[in-house]
Amino acid sequence: MDLKKIVESVPNISEARREDVLKRIIDSIRNVPDTRILDVKPDLDHNRTVISLAGSPEGLKTLLLKLYEVCLHEIDLRQHKGGHPRAGAVDVTPFIPIKNSTMEECANLARELGSEVADRFSIPVYLYEFAASREERRDLAYIRRGEFEGFAQKIKQPGWTPDFGPDAIHPSAGVTVIGARMPLIAFNVNLGTSDLQIANKIAKAVRNSSGGLRFVKAMGVALQERNIVQVSMNLTDYKKTPVFRAVEMVRREADRYGVPVVGSELIGLIPAEALFETAEYYLQMENFQLSQVLENKLLEES
Amino acid sequence: MDLKKIVESVPNISEARREDVLKRIIDSIRNVPDTRILDVKPDLDHNRTVISLAGSPEGLKTLLLKLYEVCLHEIDLRQHKGGHPRAGAVDVTPFIPIKNSTMEECANLARELGSEVADRFSIPVYLYEFAASREERRDLAYIRRGEFEGFAQKIKQPGWTPDFGPDAIHPSAGVTVIGARMPLIAFNVNLGTSDLQIANKIAKAVRNSSGGLRFVKAMGVALQERNIVQVSMNLTDYKKTPVFRAVEMVRREADRYGVPVVGSELIGLIPAEALFETAEYYLQMENFQLSQVLENKLLEES
Repeated sequence: MDLKKIVESVPNISEARREDVLKRIIDSIRNVPDTRILDVKPDLDHNRTVISLAGSPEGLKTLLLKLYEVCLHEIDLRQHKGGHPRAGAVDVTPFIPIKNSTMEECANLARELGSEVADRFSIPVYLYEFAASREERRDLAYIRRGEFEGFAQKIKQPGWTPDFGPDAIHPSAGVTVIGARMPLIAFNVNLGTSDLQIANKIAKAVRNSSGGLRFVKAMGVALQERNIVQVSMNLTDYKKTPVFRAVEMVRREADRYGVPVVGSELIGLIPAEALFETAEYYLQMENFQLSQVLENKLLEES
Repeated sequence: MDLKKIVESVPNISEARREDVLKRIIDSIRNVPDTRILDVKPDLDHNRTVISLAGSPEGLKTLLLKLYEVCLHEIDLRQHKGGHPRAGAVDVTPFIPIKNSTMEECANLARELGSEVADRFSIPVYLYEFAASREERRDLAYIRRGEFEGFAQKIKQPGWTPDFGPDAIHPSAGVTVIGARMPLIAFNVNLGTSDLQIANKIAKAVRNSSGGLRFVKAMGVALQERNIVQVSMNLTDYKKTPVFRAVEMVRREADRYGVPVVGSELIGLIPAEALFETAEYYLQMENFQLSQVLENKLLEES
């Protein structure tokens, strides 16, 4: 894939337990020109599958319309149970700018896809995060409150008119939430202690919700088999709250308890730039340019 | 350029001062299929130009044969003066494995190019570093000793039979040295002092030649306009002596004098992997995979 403009999309669909169904869904989105399936992660407890895709804006739109169509046929939320909140067969579809694409373009892409999904399949569409049409709809959890079962009523309430599509849920597919967001980095820091309270205190110090860094979500987790704990973080905007700054803050807070950082763990994918700027920080590089990375130079237009 | 196998080559040619000549030489190697000119760095003091190229093995061979041909026409070493040792119009041409290519392949590529250069242009060819035919020829400086002016005699001496081509220098183009090596990283660490002796002592501690790290060359340099000094390093195998280890050793040695590292400077290009492993080191990542870098995932074969 040698695309000038690359966008990522990570649709979450409400199916994981019926293997044959999941296979048919994934098979239906293979080999769409200018797209690639990066990863498929079914979670059986949640009965939900996270699909990571990359491609050109047009390629992804074509692929995702296929995905909505096949999920409409294969998934009936009236029969669906799982541990994760959901309001749609395709529950949420974010677009993420990766290369030579902007957040504004991704927000527009969300609107274009939303409009087509509503028109073709009569599924109500809510836009979220950077594509949201009003402030309170930025928050996915807020939109999804009440889930599929509650949405038949909720959609009739004032303020809940969808951004596209009918004022009534699709009987089997519910609603869907489409938007644009930054890449998410899931990064866990392991501590040399088995005391979960310490991990929780550090998590509280570094996360936004309790006064910490603006684009960090965090919680303490026990790693029982290793008899240690970790601060499990989601970094929701690595350009504004970089990985190294979050990790250094964990390290500094851990010092408070005389606890060492014994390792760390990246879950899933990370944009190259987030690692380049980490190296730049620790090596104290002056005037580093991304075009000094050999591979970037190769990918530039001649 | 979307190539499965990417090799770099950095020919050094003995011309920089005659702008029109240099322009004709560079123009002659533009637009060779499956190649890209990454950088052209003329040095007027040295009267020497370093050309950075990347491409497929076949593309590069085609380009480099053109380069040898045009340099043969444009450069006459009998008229050449400059501050850098040289024995050829095209003085040295290394191949460097970058992506899905091995050092062994690059050494073979050096032999193939060497054989063709000798056959077509009657220029004697010496193979160096990983392409060397005998131990003592690994060292470029050793091969080049005596330079163009001394080579007419030297080539007749026992042990100096070239690897390819005639036992006599080309009258205007001399000889050429072709080989395979690791990417070179030029990395300078700036110190918060104006005392050049301190930079020299640290350089001595970290460089291979005086007992330091195996793949580090280093010297102290004064940055007069900033009134500080730097340890200027060449890292000749970043896989075996990584950037972070060399920088941390400089930092530790600087501590000895109570001198802080105030910044650092990357000159030219660096392979992405060298920065990824720097981030991995400082973040103490466990089980990090290069395939977790989003852009790498995109470049993988589907």
